[in-house]
Amino acid sequence: MPMKLRNLSIRKSLIGLVPILEWAPKYNTHKLVSDLIAGVTVGLTVMPQSLAYATLAGLEPQYGLYSAFMGGFVYSVFGTCKDITIGPTALMALMTYQQIVNRSTDYAILLCFLSGIVQLLMSVLHLGVLVDFISIPVTVGFTSATSVIIAASQLKGLLGLKFSSSGFIDNISKVFQNLHNTRISDLSLGICSIALLLFLRKIKDMKLCGGAGKSTRQKYISRLLWLTSTARNALVVVGCSLIAYYCETSGIGSPFLLTGSVKQGMPTIQLPPFQTVVANRTVLFGEMLCDLGTSVVLVPVIAVLGNVAIAKAFASGQVIDATQELFTLSLCNVLGSFFSSMPITGSFSRSAVNHASGVQTPLGGVFTGVLVLLALGFLTPYFAYIPKASLAAIIICAVIFMIEYEVVKPMWRSNRKDLIPTFATFILCLGVGVELGILIGVLINIVFLLYPSARPKLTVGTQKLTDGREYLLVTPGNSILFPSIEFMRAQIAKIAVQSPHLPVVVDCTFILSIDFTAAKGLSSMIDEFIQRKQSLYFLNPSPEFVAIFKGAGQEEFQYINSSEDIPSFLDSKINEESSLLQFNPSSVELKEIRYSENEDLSLRKV
Amino acid sequence: MPMKLRNLSIRKSLIGLVPILEWAPKYNTHKLVSDLIAGVTVGLTVMPQSLAYATLAGLEPQYGLYSAFMGGFVYSVFGTCKDITIGPTALMALMTYQQIVNRSTDYAILLCFLSGIVQLLMSVLHLGVLVDFISIPVTVGFTSATSVIIAASQLKGLLGLKFSSSGFIDNISKVFQNLHNTRISDLSLGICSIALLLFLRKIKDMKLCGGAGKSTRQKYISRLLWLTSTARNALVVVGCSLIAYYCETSGIGSPFLLTGSVKQGMPTIQLPPFQTVVANRTVLFGEMLCDLGTSVVLVPVIAVLGNVAIAKAFASGQVIDATQELFTLSLCNVLGSFFSSMPITGSFSRSAVNHASGVQTPLGGVFTGVLVLLALGFLTPYFAYIPKASLAAIIICAVIFMIEYEVVKPMWRSNRKDLIPTFATFILCLGVGVELGILIGVLINIVFLLYPSARPKLTVGTQKLTDGREYLLVTPGNSILFPSIEFMRAQIAKIAVQSPHLPVVVDCTFILSIDFTAAKGLSSMIDEFIQRKQSLYFLNPSPEFVAIFKGAGQEEFQYINSSEDIPSFLDSKINEESSLLQFNPSSVELKEIRYSENEDLSLRKV
Repeated sequence: MPMKLRNLSIRKSLIGLVPILEWAPKYNTHKLVSDLIAGVTVGLTVMPQSLAYATLAGLEPQYGLYSAFMGGFVYSVFGTCKDITIGPTALMALMTYQQIVNRSTDYAILLCFLSGIVQLLMSVLHLGVLVDFISIPVTVGFTSATSVIIAASQLKGLLGLKFSSSGFIDNISKVFQNLHNTRISDLSLGICSIALLLFLRKIKDMKLCGGAGKSTRQKYISRLLWLTSTARNALVVVGCSLIAYYCETSGIGSPFLLTGSVKQGMPTIQLPPFQTVVANRTVLFGEMLCDLGTSVVLVPVIAVLGNVAIAKAFASGQVIDATQELFTLSLCNVLGSFFSSMPITGSFSRSAVNHASGVQTPLGGVFTGVLVLLALGFLTPYFAYIPKASLAAIIICAVIFMIEYEVVKPMWRSNRKDLIPTFATFILCLGVGVELGILIGVLINIVFLLYPSARPKLTVGTQKLTDGREYLLVTPGNSILFPSIEFMRAQIAKIAVQSPHLPVVVDCTFILSIDFTAAKGLSSMIDEFIQRKQSLYFLNPSPEFVAIFKGAGQEEFQYINSSEDIPSFLDSKINEESSLLQFNPSSVELKEIRYSENEDLSLRKV
Repeated sequence: MPMKLRNLSIRKSLIGLVPILEWAPKYNTHKLVSDLIAGVTVGLTVMPQSLAYATLAGLEPQYGLYSAFMGGFVYSVFGTCKDITIGPTALMALMTYQQIVNRSTDYAILLCFLSGIVQLLMSVLHLGVLVDFISIPVTVGFTSATSVIIAASQLKGLLGLKFSSSGFIDNISKVFQNLHNTRISDLSLGICSIALLLFLRKIKDMKLCGGAGKSTRQKYISRLLWLTSTARNALVVVGCSLIAYYCETSGIGSPFLLTGSVKQGMPTIQLPPFQTVVANRTVLFGEMLCDLGTSVVLVPVIAVLGNVAIAKAFASGQVIDATQELFTLSLCNVLGSFFSSMPITGSFSRSAVNHASGVQTPLGGVFTGVLVLLALGFLTPYFAYIPKASLAAIIICAVIFMIEYEVVKPMWRSNRKDLIPTFATFILCLGVGVELGILIGVLINIVFLLYPSARPKLTVGTQKLTDGREYLLVTPGNSILFPSIEFMRAQIAKIAVQSPHLPVVVDCTFILSIDFTAAKGLSSMIDEFIQRKQSLYFLNPSPEFVAIFKGAGQEEFQYINSSEDIPSFLDSKINEESSLLQFNPSSVELKEIRYSENEDLSLRKV
């Protein structure tokens, strides 16, 4: 029995590490068809995208395809979120560009390798906790902004315009500047594609007329509608490509801007470049590392942030194993770098396409990868006829449903303050770029976390014993740590000085932790009370509190211990009367402070 | 009467803003003598230091003196800590150097002006709270490291060596490389100076022999000893300078390295340079701002961090008004920039000299400032004879007592974890520089603050009712905010799945705040419990908790509301028996959860 249990436990950890073991036994034909359709659709999306992103990163086009297959293979085995497709992204391409401009392609591949290594370290050191610091507000802001940016970036293709831009605002202004160059043929194809895609998206949910009992024929039609709806992206791409092919070959001319041909052939399998040649000079690893600088940390962290934000967006409430995502992403990058890949991560737009195409398991990525490899080997000439406008239509239809305006209302009702990081992230992502946007959003959120630790709630009330004697009850509503101690001291001193004749009791119920700075600050506070000849007691401190306090400065503590007259007096009165509960309601903010009937209700002397 | 009270209140705020109003009326001759001695001693220290720091910043020597007087004047009126002397520092000089190398002096003066403006903004926006995030551990690490760095930087002068170095490690290695060039005369003077200083430092505390009653003569001797001890820095400087002057003028030669002459004359009073000329090209304000980049924010923030760290070190437990310090520092920099000053802040070494010289009020800074102005105008030739070795001795004797090794023991006894930021700050300050060291130290400390918000303590226990029925009581020991919700969900799910037949009660006593992300996460958790058909109740949630929860997702909440059978059952039982207090001691970590005798002890339905 214990043997069996141990086996179960081993099996469970193994499944955690290699999630394919979980879903592979339950795999069936239905899922296979779904994954094939989704994988091929994503494949048709990733190819032109990766060519574009390679150019954006300042690399030759084939490097985009080199970066587009390993992610799918690795993620299908180790990935936890079925929708995510790993590959080149606009963000990674932009960050790579900063590193290879005026240098060599080798920097991009080394950056990919090092990003993987840093992610592996983060995974081993369980730094997945970092990802918990991306809240829903930041995710919503980031997701919505990325959707807007991606949709806007596709306007160019939709209108048949030709220009290069950097960033959202530049892109929008260039679109308007070039609006007079709009190609009617591309725009028509694009709008038709969008209309068709939105229609096909809807037919899945169409209710067939008829009664409660479904006939076999109705079931088949339902199934066909589902298939058509799910394969809509692939159908539109193939249809548009056929039209384009017909126009080109039948002598009608070239009405549409096409993706164009790609250099054929597989990448060489080799170690990532640990040295390179720039301007006829050999640059060694150390210098390359110095050149890459902080991006060696920034690129993998941004990649993980983005990847987990996407995973959370698609997880619909399920818990994401951030450490596993880190591990998978690190493998994707490390292995990718052996195939001349640039840094890769989860792609938001392609994950949306994947999701919309009805992917069932991460196996979709394998089909995508195979398609990319086939394209590199044989298919390149055929994909050259994909019109850019139809691809733009697919991406626009995928991302417009990711703009999460509907979350604003519950957020307003629930916790208005959370709208600040949401809109800050959204606006900053649009204005200054997604990486800075998400980072500042997270920082704003951390400031919200830290502020209460620096300015905690302090509840103050005058308490009356039955014999008429009073004392001040101060209840700090939080742990006392270094950022709050100066504030607490100043507040308590202010209150105590106003009523110098009253003893002060600090209720330590909510003080779950304390540090050295706080202990020192409290020691100084005790000194001040001693100077003022005012009594000060700590009510109900935890043993840790006492230990840390005694460790930091015993003398002041001993003094409190020796002045037993007033507390012991209060003590007996309280035990007799149990009158501690007569709060002054006007000054007490905390609803309830409750005492047990069978609890020794003494003011403890520390 | 109200008139008088209002006047009192206005007077109080005015004193807060202009602290000189507080201490000026109580000023007396004793304080004047102390301040004069300290001011002159600091003046004798600041002059050679400022010349050295100007050179370090890549400026002509006189700019150091231009930076050395305004701080004292402004601080004497607005400063809160008597020991602090504002002026050029090694750190500010280093940071300035980064900005003016290959540019012009105007960048340093503009940086000074802009630092002041940024500090003024921080002061107006009450960002003084930032300074609360420097804990005692970080302060101790920073203070001790700065002391070691400053002491090490003086070895050169003490040994009579000549080299230029950057950073602590480079300095130490250069000292060892150049050890064979040690000038015995300088070393002898330096060691004699140190011995004399340490002796004079002690005589203040010497008990004169004699009985209880002190004769007038003994009082005079006591007073003389105190004066001699307090003026020891000035005495040593003047004595050594006289010896050097005698040697130089009597033909003995030049046994000691001297400070040397400084260019005479006052700085021109003018607006800070909003444009400059670099390589015969006029650079306008916008470009200068771009060139300065992040240092416009980094320099003033580091200046404030350093200044308040010093203030805390000398405050010996008193509360520092960080906002007032910010305001004062901003005035020092803004006004300084009209006199061609580089960025200035509190100097650790000179504040130590000031403190050791027995300064009584910030007025010492005025004497320092006047001395610097006199030196610029007339005295420069006389101070040229100060031997470098004697100045090195003064600085070493001032800082060695600031190495706070003795705090390690109470910290170890009190809160061991706090030793990590202490030693990290200390080692990083030595290894990679003080600015990075203090920043990383603060960040490590913030991580310590944030970690409990991501991985809160969760107390779990099986509770038994008197009829034998059991339930799981889960008590989160912290507010539930976005970093912790995924962890909490996973933990509660793990516990609940292990005992699927038991209802789960989440005690919300310690949950003082909640945000939208947490509310969404709890909603998903409720859904999971519904799917498992396991009961889940929230005990004692605050009204805010309920409001935020309801705002974020009502449906799940309504569902809990409608499944009334089990909780109402539990309800009645508990009301009858009050048996909630039978904790399972083995699994319950929190000491006490207390209930009032007269409190309605119902499990509330949310």
